[in-house]
Amino acid sequence: MVIVGEKINTSLKGITEAIKAKDKEFIQELAVRQSKQGSDYIDVNCGTLIDVEEEMLPWLVEIVQEVVDKPCCIDSPNPKALESALKVHKGVPMINSITAEKSRYDDVIKLVKQYDAKIVALLIDDANGISPSDEVRTKIGIELINKMHEDGVPYENMYIDPLIQPISTDSNMGLVALNTIANIKQNFPGVHFMCGLSNISFGLPNRGLLNRTYLAMCMNAGLDGAVLDPGNRKMMSMIFAGEALLNKDRFTKKYLKAHRKGLLE
Amino acid sequence: MVIVGEKINTSLKGITEAIKAKDKEFIQELAVRQSKQGSDYIDVNCGTLIDVEEEMLPWLVEIVQEVVDKPCCIDSPNPKALESALKVHKGVPMINSITAEKSRYDDVIKLVKQYDAKIVALLIDDANGISPSDEVRTKIGIELINKMHEDGVPYENMYIDPLIQPISTDSNMGLVALNTIANIKQNFPGVHFMCGLSNISFGLPNRGLLNRTYLAMCMNAGLDGAVLDPGNRKMMSMIFAGEALLNKDRFTKKYLKAHRKGLLE
Repeated sequence: MVIVGEKINTSLKGITEAIKAKDKEFIQELAVRQSKQGSDYIDVNCGTLIDVEEEMLPWLVEIVQEVVDKPCCIDSPNPKALESALKVHKGVPMINSITAEKSRYDDVIKLVKQYDAKIVALLIDDANGISPSDEVRTKIGIELINKMHEDGVPYENMYIDPLIQPISTDSNMGLVALNTIANIKQNFPGVHFMCGLSNISFGLPNRGLLNRTYLAMCMNAGLDGAVLDPGNRKMMSMIFAGEALLNKDRFTKKYLKAHRKGLLE
Repeated sequence: MVIVGEKINTSLKGITEAIKAKDKEFIQELAVRQSKQGSDYIDVNCGTLIDVEEEMLPWLVEIVQEVVDKPCCIDSPNPKALESALKVHKGVPMINSITAEKSRYDDVIKLVKQYDAKIVALLIDDANGISPSDEVRTKIGIELINKMHEDGVPYENMYIDPLIQPISTDSNMGLVALNTIANIKQNFPGVHFMCGLSNISFGLPNRGLLNRTYLAMCMNAGLDGAVLDPGNRKMMSMIFAGEALLNKDRFTKKYLKAHRKGLLE
């Protein structure tokens, strides 16, 4: 499971203020903590500071990589902001995200190739937007994967995001993302899947319970990456358990190590 | 999700003594508690008291149904013990279990038909025993379902048990049961699936975590019944969450009711 630590994001409390104040220590502490908690990538997102994003996103990458020996997940819909951040990134970056919308695709695919980046691909196209149908999402996914592959992106660099939406507004949304993952995985066993989970429980109580339960279900469907708070011990425990159960943790080594460290709950 | 309360079973602590002493109150208290906690069936099993099973199993059914308005899951490999218990059972019983082994099949199928019972079917046959292969288990399942159907059992009365075995002895066992459920469900969308979950974690620490995570995965694969302790609040919470996520809980009514009652954790 590829873990993307989600905490450096201006949509979360305190982050906008820290970035505006250029509070380097605050951001770096978040990066170090998430790295120690098991993040494979540190997400950097300053999407709400739209006027200064092109300047702030590379700054975030630089200060994160000053203290953490991990790649960033560079999170923006703005190709210019992505490019300015990619220029200063060390190692193999992850770009979050591309879609099948023509103009966005054309802008972002160039960067993916130029920087040999991992790419998170959202199942959105010009004709359908975000479709409520798993069949349509699957179709968009298959076309998008084929297109990226023709454009030179290896399957193993692709992280398909099935787009998780709240079951409180449409009770079928849990099944839609699960089916989309399973269907695309059947067609392309070599691609990866990545998503944020917490949207699923929006508007309902006991969100953590729903998010964790859904994580286990998504792992069974084929999810092998998640954007989350690696300080969420219950969620991380379930990932250790899930990998052991799906025979992705040889001799349950990682599970037993997590147990010995007192991480499981 | 069909919940079979597992607590009245001589393999669990205190039960053998209670049954030997004919401690009716102790057993009845367990039955009432499990019913209040959400059991749809009360399992009765006195398999370790093999000499007196034919006498004790009907006694258990009678005293359980004296205090609880729920059917029993009559749990024995012994057709004579099953029959003596079925004779006194009120309502539609569940028999646990039949297999594809010729002699056991022939004995038990008669009872299933005579009592119009729900039937738990284990994926075991004479040629393979308990196979380590999901393909073999699927094949046994398909043949067993077809045979039972030819013999007059409606699909909706069948509860297929994929036979969950510990990942500590064979790390592929989690996938084997998941794949078996998914494969059989694809062939027979109308049949049910039922199993005990705790075997999966035998020999490993933090068993509850593994059991719960596996439950969510099995629900995603198609499991719609489980033999468990309905007093296990974390497990029951996950069932409420799982049904909401899989769109089996209209308007998340049951989930929200469980939340209001303070049952979710």
